[in-house]
Amino acid sequence: MSSNRRRSIGIFDSGIGGLTVVRQVHRMLPDEDIVYLGDTARVPYGTKSPETVVRFACEDTEFLAQRRVKAVVVACNTASAWALPTLHRRFDLPVFGVIEPGAAMALRRTRNRRIGVIGTSATIRSGAYSRIIHVLDAGAKVFARACPLLVPLVEEGWTNRPETRSILRDYLSPLLRCGIDTLVLGCTHYPLLKPAIRSIVGKDVALVDSAESCAEFLRIDLSERKLLFIGRRRTGTIRPFVTDDVGRFEWLSRRFLGAEIQRPRRVFLPVAGTDGSG
Amino acid sequence: MSSNRRRSIGIFDSGIGGLTVVRQVHRMLPDEDIVYLGDTARVPYGTKSPETVVRFACEDTEFLAQRRVKAVVVACNTASAWALPTLHRRFDLPVFGVIEPGAAMALRRTRNRRIGVIGTSATIRSGAYSRIIHVLDAGAKVFARACPLLVPLVEEGWTNRPETRSILRDYLSPLLRCGIDTLVLGCTHYPLLKPAIRSIVGKDVALVDSAESCAEFLRIDLSERKLLFIGRRRTGTIRPFVTDDVGRFEWLSRRFLGAEIQRPRRVFLPVAGTDGSG
Repeated sequence: MSSNRRRSIGIFDSGIGGLTVVRQVHRMLPDEDIVYLGDTARVPYGTKSPETVVRFACEDTEFLAQRRVKAVVVACNTASAWALPTLHRRFDLPVFGVIEPGAAMALRRTRNRRIGVIGTSATIRSGAYSRIIHVLDAGAKVFARACPLLVPLVEEGWTNRPETRSILRDYLSPLLRCGIDTLVLGCTHYPLLKPAIRSIVGKDVALVDSAESCAEFLRIDLSERKLLFIGRRRTGTIRPFVTDDVGRFEWLSRRFLGAEIQRPRRVFLPVAGTDGSG
Repeated sequence: MSSNRRRSIGIFDSGIGGLTVVRQVHRMLPDEDIVYLGDTARVPYGTKSPETVVRFACEDTEFLAQRRVKAVVVACNTASAWALPTLHRRFDLPVFGVIEPGAAMALRRTRNRRIGVIGTSATIRSGAYSRIIHVLDAGAKVFARACPLLVPLVEEGWTNRPETRSILRDYLSPLLRCGIDTLVLGCTHYPLLKPAIRSIVGKDVALVDSAESCAEFLRIDLSERKLLFIGRRRTGTIRPFVTDDVGRFEWLSRRFLGAEIQRPRRVFLPVAGTDGSG
């Protein structure tokens, strides 16, 4: 068991957005080593079908499993929404998503039990947030909205432009009219829009960042499983892998991680001999 | 040779945008059968690295070659920009891109030899339009601009919203200030933005649609190679294939093709035994 404690935590995402989750995990569990996989050759997942998202998520998890990680975090909301049951069934590893932590946190924050959720088309279509919120509190009301233009806007660095605020207003007004007091940012890219979102929803709506709540969830769960790193205090390493060229990763990663990161290694998926459909 | 004439024309794109090329080819060569492949599981190509785009383009072409097409049209500007030399070398088939036809048409339309080009980040970074325009006319001036938000806006159907016009103004103003009299729409999605673009550039700037010029190029070249269909006049079929789920394809395809299309078949790439890197 103690050797397992020393293994890395694997985190994957469709691209670089998952670095917002890496950032929170690294902040909350600074001793832990992290292996990060960004599937940048096939990004985004949020516009694709459930079947394809599940296949890609299995291939990503297989890659991390081969690196002998002690747990896998699905940083991508879309993959969390569609692929978790399959990953739990297929891999003999603790696998964590971002939906359940985000849903639980939203219920802790809301006072009027009217919760807004924004995410990619695929995440919203899955109904995963509504489903889990209703399992935890059958009386809560959930108002969900797909916001497919936000990821491209963030990736362009247009996080606080007039056009972005105008598009955000368009997406968020219907939710505000429903009287939400809590808004789940159901996509790894959205934390970078917090200031713009705050300026539209005002100070009375709580913003729930799935990345933060996921890191907290992970800490508790790994502790219960006796999988937390124990040893001399140190700063854990972050080893990044990507499936496309590394250039764009370096440029974007600083913004998502809020820090420098070592040069990623390029890998090809699916790993030979696995096709994720087996 | 006459049996070759009866074969289909293969057209591929990173997604469904290439249906704007299918539309023009079908309009200009109505007798011809067309096999279309949209790599919807890995779309977009325009944000990815040259190496990855070349690998995907080889896999797409391999799929069409296995269907025994008589020629391949690379409808995707990004793939045309990066992959044509490799495709010409690796496949024993006529392969056409959209860049050269677009460049040639721009030079026919311009009077002041100041040409604007808009496209995805990868297409513009490749410098392919500038290079070919300068081969054809060393004295022409080319002003290029990457417009990464336009594809998501079109895919959302936001082709004529205030936000879209505002973003377009932002992208196009620098080109207009350079005095261009011709603008190449260097991405399959952009023809759907023609009315919005026209409202910003005014009536004195010629808009060049690569899809149209590509279809014209194809007709001339196939005729010279004696590969045009000859036989009883008829309406050619369009057989679509996609790599992701077919649902989203059906919804979007009507807008790009401007007509109904038969239900696509789902295929997986790379085809077994090929990895595009050989």
